Amino acid sequence: MAALRSELGIQRTDRAEPPPISEVALPEARPMPEAVRRAAGEAALSTAAEDRLRHAAGRSYPDLVRLRSGTLDLAPDAIAAPESRERVAALLEACSDADVAVVPYGGGSSVVGGLDAISGPHSAVLSLDLRALRSVELDATSLTARLGPGLRGPEAELELGQLGVTLGHFPQSYEQATIGGYAATRSAGQASTGYGRFDELVTSVELTTPVGPLRTLAVPHTAAGPALRELVLGSEGTLGVITDVVCRVRPVPQERSFEGWVAEDFAAGAAIVRTLIQNDEAPDVLRLSDEEETRVSLRLSGSDGLQKRALDAYLRLRRRSGGCLLICGYEGERESVRRRRSLGSRRLREGGAVPLGRAAGRSWERSRFEGPYLRDELLGMRVLVETLETAHTWSRLDELYAGVGEALREVLGPQSIVMCHLSHAYADGASLYFTFLTAAREGEEIEQWRRAKRAASEAILAAEATITHHHAVGRDHAPYMRAEIGDAGVEALRAVKERLDPAGIMNPGKLLPGD
Amino acid sequence: MAALRSELGIQRTDRAEPPPISEVALPEARPMPEAVRRAAGEAALSTAAEDRLRHAAGRSYPDLVRLRSGTLDLAPDAIAAPESRERVAALLEACSDADVAVVPYGGGSSVVGGLDAISGPHSAVLSLDLRALRSVELDATSLTARLGPGLRGPEAELELGQLGVTLGHFPQSYEQATIGGYAATRSAGQASTGYGRFDELVTSVELTTPVGPLRTLAVPHTAAGPALRELVLGSEGTLGVITDVVCRVRPVPQERSFEGWVAEDFAAGAAIVRTLIQNDEAPDVLRLSDEEETRVSLRLSGSDGLQKRALDAYLRLRRRSGGCLLICGYEGERESVRRRRSLGSRRLREGGAVPLGRAAGRSWERSRFEGPYLRDELLGMRVLVETLETAHTWSRLDELYAGVGEALREVLGPQSIVMCHLSHAYADGASLYFTFLTAAREGEEIEQWRRAKRAASEAILAAEATITHHHAVGRDHAPYMRAEIGDAGVEALRAVKERLDPAGIMNPGKLLPGD
Repeated sequence: MAALRSELGIQRTDRAEPPPISEVALPEARPMPEAVRRAAGEAALSTAAEDRLRHAAGRSYPDLVRLRSGTLDLAPDAIAAPESRERVAALLEACSDADVAVVPYGGGSSVVGGLDAISGPHSAVLSLDLRALRSVELDATSLTARLGPGLRGPEAELELGQLGVTLGHFPQSYEQATIGGYAATRSAGQASTGYGRFDELVTSVELTTPVGPLRTLAVPHTAAGPALRELVLGSEGTLGVITDVVCRVRPVPQERSFEGWVAEDFAAGAAIVRTLIQNDEAPDVLRLSDEEETRVSLRLSGSDGLQKRALDAYLRLRRRSGGCLLICGYEGERESVRRRRSLGSRRLREGGAVPLGRAAGRSWERSRFEGPYLRDELLGMRVLVETLETAHTWSRLDELYAGVGEALREVLGPQSIVMCHLSHAYADGASLYFTFLTAAREGEEIEQWRRAKRAASEAILAAEATITHHHAVGRDHAPYMRAEIGDAGVEALRAVKERLDPAGIMNPGKLLPGD
Repeated sequence: MAALRSELGIQRTDRAEPPPISEVALPEARPMPEAVRRAAGEAALSTAAEDRLRHAAGRSYPDLVRLRSGTLDLAPDAIAAPESRERVAALLEACSDADVAVVPYGGGSSVVGGLDAISGPHSAVLSLDLRALRSVELDATSLTARLGPGLRGPEAELELGQLGVTLGHFPQSYEQATIGGYAATRSAGQASTGYGRFDELVTSVELTTPVGPLRTLAVPHTAAGPALRELVLGSEGTLGVITDVVCRVRPVPQERSFEGWVAEDFAAGAAIVRTLIQNDEAPDVLRLSDEEETRVSLRLSGSDGLQKRALDAYLRLRRRSGGCLLICGYEGERESVRRRRSLGSRRLREGGAVPLGRAAGRSWERSRFEGPYLRDELLGMRVLVETLETAHTWSRLDELYAGVGEALREVLGPQSIVMCHLSHAYADGASLYFTFLTAAREGEEIEQWRRAKRAASEAILAAEATITHHHAVGRDHAPYMRAEIGDAGVEALRAVKERLDPAGIMNPGKLLPGD
């Protein structure tokens, strides 16, 4: 960590400690109308400061900076934890009538400001915590499971695992995020190349809106008009509350095999990934770091001598200093893993990659959910650290990679790290996931972050790529939605919102541009 | 055919000949407002009777009956064939202002009344024929192609084939249907189990609406809100005109291998299909006929001695009279075909199926686009023949199969044939495609058809299945949409329509229920 400090030009070595939760200042709670309190019934409203604080923010960099500053300017005025979808419906109706904004709350892991307690024109904000809705109902014949929106990743996997199946959905936020949140934000996980993104796993949904339930049929496919399921997925709480999700599941894999490879450079690695996916031979997990991410992640994983030694040996052998780490993970029946691993290895060798072995794969696997914790550690070191992701077709991926990288390096200056990995590969393209680090300027962190975010976002727009591949829109990306979907797209979404949420109480200030 | 006649109790042996096109009576053409004629510009409007007739109907049973009756009660008043998307936009704007309904026209192969020239509250109907929009632009790196909506299946495949790729989309309507039509109706093809349905091939679309263009980004995926692409797919011309479609393509397969198998019965065959697909081992084409369809198709394919001899030999061997034909088709690289065929054959044998060899597969392949022609032949024999399709999860497929079959047999009476095949398999379920035949009652064909259609549709609703897996909604299924998507679903679609098509001119009477 000392090396990182020196690379980023951070002088101070003491830790910036966040204040104790009891000392964080919140805006005064506005009163909840009697009708809303009545509708909450047994799911009695909480107005305790700690509850309000815990529901006030997600996990974006600005969220963490605000929490560390000791003062939050936004927090919900009360929290309800409805025990049934009927209760959700009653609360939405009461809030519509009584002019109270509603922010649905799942795992609190939004990294795009999706939980900001914006009241808009309304008199107060109610946080609707879905933790009580945690049912699991398996259809073992159809390999689908009906899941409550409040189930966190590990809870869902534990219950499903006891029934012999898995969702196979493992985003970095897995330990916190919920089924409802996955659906509301179109989450993608680390194994989505193999299992499919969450939106691809969902076969039907129920959205409880202020005007009634919107349910899609639990059938494998329908051509009965536009796909309403796809209107609910990604709606981020702005149309209603997702109260039921039916997902595809798979048998728990007999075998899992993760391994590391090194590609000559990012372009060579990307060409391998493209070949694998276009030949239907992609591993279930497939992740290519660029040179910078390879360098930094090896440097940070100091304890993991094995992976570093393997890579060093490879680089000495090739008398080169670059190289890009490629993680491949295969899951499934023993025979299928063996066969696909053998096909994959052939393509990897043909593309010039060199195997690092399974230790490197295991090392990645062990740390796959550590990102959020590492980030807290970095904030304590006074590092500004943020991630953002986008996606493009293979033919324009280089342009996007160069454009976003240059924009970030220019705005962050020389003492910064901008690194990237390619994951979520598709036959027609891939996502790029950027991480950037620089010394935080105390007291100006958010403005510093905003400049970097704006520079990257504008580079993304310039390349005609998407503003988000799987982090969703929330508050942070809302200003870019008009560029993303155009005037007619904005109007189409607004029309749906106005019809299903006529009082405009559902998660104000998120998803749609405010203009 | 004599055997079929006797089975259905049809006495007359003379053919019912349709009247010559020049003798079909059409309603008088209403005048097109000057503003619309001006907007058409070089794409001069046609009001010729033959043109109007050719744009007046699709290929549903009622369409064919009406054409054969010599009198059409609905026909567009004029036809425009715009040469550019700008012209489409200008025409939609002029029609909005001048109160003229617009029916987009692709290949004219709708089997659900999607082309009916309903004027609703408007003064006239313009058919917008998209045949001039036929561009093809390949991105060979990303394996995507930007396609004009007016390309017919074979035109698109010819141009793409010269570039070494294929869409792999082969619906029974392939020879007539267009790219725009595939997208507007969520078409599925015979190889969709392998290549994906058309909606799964589409990566982005442009919808030209009366208020402007709605374009989605050409990226592999985005989490930027609800998927607007999925709102355009299946919109059936009710929101605007699809003027541009970007699709995934694949290398032209090196090898194609089709083969026939016989399963013991429909349940055993379905179990095999489920095992194949749930183990990611499904062939690209996978189609299981029930006992009745197996019997009838062997009987009708009189010339194809080989397939019949093989099946007869099998049945003698097993001393049974039943058996269900299963067609498996593998496409791709030689090695991949070999490997998948070997995996598939193992599952088929484990499930008790017996191979009929490749001749049976080739026989099916040769006749795969003949359905529409066979239907004309049957109409000439005074047979009422119709198909309908639905889908459900594996756990409820038996219930759906039994319910629809019983409902049809009850309404059609004993001298009828009700048969079914399972195709379009998914990990969580499959589609069922019913065909029914009975003696047409002259002059009452449409009422007779309506009763059968209603009985089948109500059985589908009772099983909570979808009213259509890939034929779309059109006019025929519109009354069932409220049961399919609920009040909130209908309101969401209406809201979008009212915003993008404020004058309500786009394809009136289709998709949404009229109540």
